[in-house]
Amino acid sequence: MDLYRERGFDQTTVAEIAERAGLTERTFFRHFADKREVLFGGSAALVELLVHSVTDAPDGFSPIDAVASALSAAGALLQGRREFARQRQAVITSNPELQERELIKMASLAAAVAGALRQRGATEPAASLAAEAGIAVFRVAFERWVNGPESRPLPEWIDESMQELRGVITAR
Amino acid sequence: MDLYRERGFDQTTVAEIAERAGLTERTFFRHFADKREVLFGGSAALVELLVHSVTDAPDGFSPIDAVASALSAAGALLQGRREFARQRQAVITSNPELQERELIKMASLAAAVAGALRQRGATEPAASLAAEAGIAVFRVAFERWVNGPESRPLPEWIDESMQELRGVITAR
Repeated sequence: MDLYRERGFDQTTVAEIAERAGLTERTFFRHFADKREVLFGGSAALVELLVHSVTDAPDGFSPIDAVASALSAAGALLQGRREFARQRQAVITSNPELQERELIKMASLAAAVAGALRQRGATEPAASLAAEAGIAVFRVAFERWVNGPESRPLPEWIDESMQELRGVITAR
Repeated sequence: MDLYRERGFDQTTVAEIAERAGLTERTFFRHFADKREVLFGGSAALVELLVHSVTDAPDGFSPIDAVASALSAAGALLQGRREFARQRQAVITSNPELQERELIKMASLAAAVAGALRQRGATEPAASLAAEAGIAVFRVAFERWVNGPESRPLPEWIDESMQELRGVITAR
């Protein structure tokens, strides 16, 4: 991650990453399919956590409340990895191809959440709207967290951003 | 567009598109940078319309109301092109690379709308949240329009989807 920041993502080779991490290239490829995997390898776990949290939310929860509780769970998971998240964000922001990949990741998170909401009985378009709005909140909160003071935990940013969305949508 | 649907986007050559349209390849390339342009060439005009509509919305409008009025203007513009939109949607749905390009287009619409909102004094994260929520509404409404009865105009779908978002976000 330091290497991506120092030299740029495109200019960094797998050999250099492996050397910096004290691994052989072979060991690197046992853990990561390619160098983008270092940045996006956590997506599957994040999808799984969001889907499970939506599914396990109490029966009486509205779609947006089920999404909010899933985002809080994701926030708690990521909270311990702020330094990684901050560096990852800087690498992605400086590379258009990685930005596109990040967009695709966010879209697949939203699609997975919408699917989980339909599983618990939400109809369309409510499921898609709640999921997309939730992922927008997550992105905003994530960015504020990595750029904000270290002391403020991600779940708080998520709650606050969700409140702000409610305020924005209901403003007349 | 018919060719993309009959043969698939990847299998269609520019020579075939030009022939079907009664153009030389040279004339085709005078109008479109490549064959994806046929599908995405309208993006710039759509961005411009959204940005102008947000900018020109009455002073008293909240960010989400400025976005809603911009989406209605975009809906009115697209209304006359339903058959093209329907076929375009089918082509994009069947091609993962085009789906990614469409995601990137939607993200750039949202970024442009957020920028226009900041220009009229909206602060962050309200500007980004209103823009992203608005684009989510637009996507949902667009899909319902192309798949729904021909008689129902896009601006109506947009208004209804915006109401549904308000309902989703405020549900407790």
